[in-house]
Amino acid sequence: MSVTLPGPTLGVVGGGQLGRMLAEAASPLGVEVVVLDPTPACPASAVARDQIVADFDDPDGIDALASRVDALTFEIELADPDLLAEASADHDVPVHPDPDTLRTIQDKLVQNEELATAGIPVPEFVAVATADGLERVIEELGGVMLKAREGGYDGRGNVPVGAVEGAADALAEVGDHAMAETLVPFEREIAVMGVKGADGETRTYPVTETVHREEILRESVTPARADADVIAEAELVANEVLDWLDGRGVYGIELFETPDGDVLVNEIAPRPHNSGHWTIEGARTSQFENHVRAVLGWPLGPTEQVAPAVTANILGDVAETQPARLRNVESVLEAPDADLHWYGKADVRPLRKMGHLTVTEADADPNSSDRDALLARAQELRDGLTFRSD
Amino acid sequence: MSVTLPGPTLGVVGGGQLGRMLAEAASPLGVEVVVLDPTPACPASAVARDQIVADFDDPDGIDALASRVDALTFEIELADPDLLAEASADHDVPVHPDPDTLRTIQDKLVQNEELATAGIPVPEFVAVATADGLERVIEELGGVMLKAREGGYDGRGNVPVGAVEGAADALAEVGDHAMAETLVPFEREIAVMGVKGADGETRTYPVTETVHREEILRESVTPARADADVIAEAELVANEVLDWLDGRGVYGIELFETPDGDVLVNEIAPRPHNSGHWTIEGARTSQFENHVRAVLGWPLGPTEQVAPAVTANILGDVAETQPARLRNVESVLEAPDADLHWYGKADVRPLRKMGHLTVTEADADPNSSDRDALLARAQELRDGLTFRSD
Repeated sequence: MSVTLPGPTLGVVGGGQLGRMLAEAASPLGVEVVVLDPTPACPASAVARDQIVADFDDPDGIDALASRVDALTFEIELADPDLLAEASADHDVPVHPDPDTLRTIQDKLVQNEELATAGIPVPEFVAVATADGLERVIEELGGVMLKAREGGYDGRGNVPVGAVEGAADALAEVGDHAMAETLVPFEREIAVMGVKGADGETRTYPVTETVHREEILRESVTPARADADVIAEAELVANEVLDWLDGRGVYGIELFETPDGDVLVNEIAPRPHNSGHWTIEGARTSQFENHVRAVLGWPLGPTEQVAPAVTANILGDVAETQPARLRNVESVLEAPDADLHWYGKADVRPLRKMGHLTVTEADADPNSSDRDALLARAQELRDGLTFRSD
Repeated sequence: MSVTLPGPTLGVVGGGQLGRMLAEAASPLGVEVVVLDPTPACPASAVARDQIVADFDDPDGIDALASRVDALTFEIELADPDLLAEASADHDVPVHPDPDTLRTIQDKLVQNEELATAGIPVPEFVAVATADGLERVIEELGGVMLKAREGGYDGRGNVPVGAVEGAADALAEVGDHAMAETLVPFEREIAVMGVKGADGETRTYPVTETVHREEILRESVTPARADADVIAEAELVANEVLDWLDGRGVYGIELFETPDGDVLVNEIAPRPHNSGHWTIEGARTSQFENHVRAVLGWPLGPTEQVAPAVTANILGDVAETQPARLRNVESVLEAPDADLHWYGKADVRPLRKMGHLTVTEADADPNSSDRDALLARAQELRDGLTFRSD
């Protein structure tokens, strides 16, 4: 293909931290960004050419976005696939990933059914609608992760249920449009960021290890501290997933490593993902730059790792919502091995993702580096930060 | 000092490519940028929170900028030091570098006099006001570089004069507020980016070699291909300059290496500089991030080099002003070792700086890398780009 600059203007549904880091990456490439987000002065708005303040499912807002950009994408699964497809057709601007992919991924039951049909390994799963039904599933499968089929993220909508006694409460929390998955006794959670470009070209980043607590990503370690055969299996599964997906863009592929060394697909995000934030400092091309390149059909950038990297999320450590004020930031600025990323959210809420830091180890071979020490270092720096004034 | 986020809002006089790259670097740090620039939709505006459209010396514009930010800086020497000092006092917001430093640097004669007084080596220089005066200087010194004392940049306002016959025309071009400098028969032009932080802390980046043609920077090579004793002398001189300067921020210190291995100061820029663009990919902290940190009085980031780097400027290769359309960009996007930076200027003019690319060599020791090959590689990639349609 032939690429000229100034580049196309990219319209992004969603203007949170992912949109912000997309805009930061788009600027050097000569690509201007317009975001659509219901929150005035959303995180991405500080570095975007403009923000359209509208709900993700507002037809007029999506139409206005499509009318002033050259390509469309989204950074949040709450984007409406039907509206995106319609706006794309009405204004003759491409949208990537494919709205059909978004539609499939939005419903975790449909996602799992399609993955299983494609021969891609997933945990055992079954739809449930009533507490009685859930109790029967638990009797059969043992403990399950009960998931809302639609709308959950950052752990919201996911409730582990260990025994039949918890079934009714869990279903009340998640809602009756639910799916139960075997509670996989995983050895480790891992993830692969993949990117699909023009003409079906795909590239994957090195396998990341993700550490969750309360269903929320806390840290990522890259390369993952897993055996070589697990790494190879994860790359194989990730490539099967990329082949199955429709449309260009970056995808976050979350996986379980079982005690037997098997790899199962947990969830797929049709967008840059928290488990790929390490790529900003740790890879030759960041996931955000590659998403921009992929969506526009431009040549993909190399996904090689340049340094071992641990990312630690900075979460709201407060009891209730309040204006955000992160303290002790000088400790991170003084660290010669850490890079800071602030998302620009005005208010901090309990466990809200407010920023992250990435620690990289210079001049180290990624695969022989002491990642335990790097993880401890990142946690120590992150744990020195607080939103609390006491 | 204690740093909290969200960070201060930074007001920047000037919204060209330097302001754009400043805004790109400020965002991850949680620092929002407002720029003041007379050109609507100036380069920085795409990634700044806002632009105030006003001339650099518009008192109302500078006052409006100061009224809505927490700190002031500038990315262009055309900023007015008196207005900056006044707005800083009126609104109680700090301005860095010190307007006195800007005032000194704006007048090349005053700059040279002060440097000489401080014992810092500069070429022989003398003020000239008439063609007769210039002829006498040429008879005494031999060839000179005639410089407008104020307002020149990117080679404008600098005219080499080899013999008395050219004196009248040169002075007519430069104006009668001029300075003549010995035409230094340099071995090499080099530059050091330095940064001055809180409490007088200074750091310097590795010495860069700069390649000019028609007085315009074409490429930079870092580390410079110079002998170790020249490198050491350049670092010594750069540190003397940093000690002499007032106010926090990044400074570009342009130097001559003479055939005898001496180092003379050519010019000083009180801001990020083209010869420091390599730091975005090639150093642990970019000059732009360090300018933001320094101006705010935050801890400075490490200036160590992470990879050998050559930057090649993308200049307007057109005969007359026209809407900018850079072709063949896919060749740079496909290169695994190159990063692109587009400045977002709507029109291309002959020799106008429109963007740059930086080639880095992974896994290479900066001081033993083949920088001739790296330079040739960057030139080849850059020369494959054109604004011409024929």
